[in-house]
Amino acid sequence: MIPDFEVTILGNTSSIPVHGRNPTAQVVRYHKDYFLIDCGEGTQIQLQRFKVKSSRIENIFISHLHGDHYLGLVGLLSSYNLNGRTKPLTIFGPKGLDEIITTQFRWSNTRLGYPLEFIQTNPHHSEVILEKQGVKVISFPMKHRLPTTGFKVLEKERKRRLIKEKLEEANPPIEAIKAFREGKDYSSDSGKTYLVDDFAYPEPKLRSYAFCSDTIYDEGLVPYLQDMSLLYHESTFMDDQQERAKITYHSTAREAAKIAKMANVGELLLGHFSSRYNDLSEMLVEAKSEFEKSILSEQGQTYSIS
Amino acid sequence: MIPDFEVTILGNTSSIPVHGRNPTAQVVRYHKDYFLIDCGEGTQIQLQRFKVKSSRIENIFISHLHGDHYLGLVGLLSSYNLNGRTKPLTIFGPKGLDEIITTQFRWSNTRLGYPLEFIQTNPHHSEVILEKQGVKVISFPMKHRLPTTGFKVLEKERKRRLIKEKLEEANPPIEAIKAFREGKDYSSDSGKTYLVDDFAYPEPKLRSYAFCSDTIYDEGLVPYLQDMSLLYHESTFMDDQQERAKITYHSTAREAAKIAKMANVGELLLGHFSSRYNDLSEMLVEAKSEFEKSILSEQGQTYSIS
Repeated sequence: MIPDFEVTILGNTSSIPVHGRNPTAQVVRYHKDYFLIDCGEGTQIQLQRFKVKSSRIENIFISHLHGDHYLGLVGLLSSYNLNGRTKPLTIFGPKGLDEIITTQFRWSNTRLGYPLEFIQTNPHHSEVILEKQGVKVISFPMKHRLPTTGFKVLEKERKRRLIKEKLEEANPPIEAIKAFREGKDYSSDSGKTYLVDDFAYPEPKLRSYAFCSDTIYDEGLVPYLQDMSLLYHESTFMDDQQERAKITYHSTAREAAKIAKMANVGELLLGHFSSRYNDLSEMLVEAKSEFEKSILSEQGQTYSIS
Repeated sequence: MIPDFEVTILGNTSSIPVHGRNPTAQVVRYHKDYFLIDCGEGTQIQLQRFKVKSSRIENIFISHLHGDHYLGLVGLLSSYNLNGRTKPLTIFGPKGLDEIITTQFRWSNTRLGYPLEFIQTNPHHSEVILEKQGVKVISFPMKHRLPTTGFKVLEKERKRRLIKEKLEEANPPIEAIKAFREGKDYSSDSGKTYLVDDFAYPEPKLRSYAFCSDTIYDEGLVPYLQDMSLLYHESTFMDDQQERAKITYHSTAREAAKIAKMANVGELLLGHFSSRYNDLSEMLVEAKSEFEKSILSEQGQTYSIS
């Protein structure tokens, strides 16, 4: 069985929540692991609305300290507490986020009933910040008005899928089957060799997801994003606001698409749309003119990472 | 013309947002003055959703520092800034709220484009905290797990409404009409006296609104609430959780109704409902058995204060 790997968009507006778009938050699910990336105001309500199993979230990743990327965090942590959570939670985020959380819990006299760990992200270098079975998370630096990191969720390994008919035909020993799953050939004590490629489907391409929001157009990101299956890249503005994008350290849809093309990603998911745009169809045209496999993210939608 | 005086409920859940109920926030409008009382997570979205002219808000009142009463504040302040607000804003709230706001704006490197004043409320004594034309706001202490105040919005004075037919009949001088509006008799230079009660409808009863959330059942509140036109009182639990209400410093619907009855208020608006109750009809029955003029607040509804 191939583990599910997908991302659900909880919010994709830039700053001001309008046009039915909430601030940035998304849940990346790899099999049974749920990763919350950014947590704008109202995230706990969005999690309920879109029926995400939010109690499964054990790791939260915050890109930077503009309010539209973290203001829902204290409410979510408080609701976990009121719901009797005991399972540990780890927050990865920039310096200062711990002070923001502890200041509020100090004044509200809150004692959490579950262990909360804070791990400070590094805004200067890429780092592996989490390793789970089958998957790992890497942070990498981005250029914005505040210290900001992007996040990559990478499939580490995947068992080879076996060809049932071939196994039935040759009936290799049980140890051989285990070796095939790991992608290895097998030699029996009697000297007979079984080649994995005869009994297993071709090596699967490892899947990967990257989150880049917020960032100015930055070709320095390309090495971090090379060959990603799915790239979520901020797309605050259209061509008409290219200068404004530069001044505010944001990107246009076209710029996001250029990065996607240079990095040779599978698909590009656009988000973090400025409140000035209600209809986004022209924005999509601008992105597609650079990179055909561009998609406008929609709140409440789940996108498969494949 | 009698100035409009009304309250719009933006949220009325206790702590966890469920059953389509958002955390506490409400807008009291007196003519052109908009007062925001409490500002739970998502308040800026609720203001838009219910088409409240949020740019008109110049005064925000925060009862206490449990997250469900203030977590929407930094998002609202940020959005005002992004929308180019220049009009001053005053926040009245407990000690600590200023630190919570400034900590976040320091980390997000936010410079507001409008003057923001913070006025600390007094959790020990009742105080007049704001005087506007025709209306004033008073804070008063409540008993909860944190320092908490309630708020009263009181009509100060209202021009007497004139009886058109009587004026046309007697045709008094223009100065007399001005005096009648102020509720005064008028004597002309020639010694003729005009009695206000002959030309104006009877003295209007001044209208008033009180907000009590969160609070334990506390008969000490009664003097503050005497004869209020409309009382919003928290009603977290039903009779089945009376003990829990006491332990958590909250009230049951019945207790809210008892306070309303003792204070001889006009109407009682119930809110801050626990997430354990979806259907609230039995809660209303319990309240009405003590005080007939009890109403369950509904999110998005506007209640006239009369």
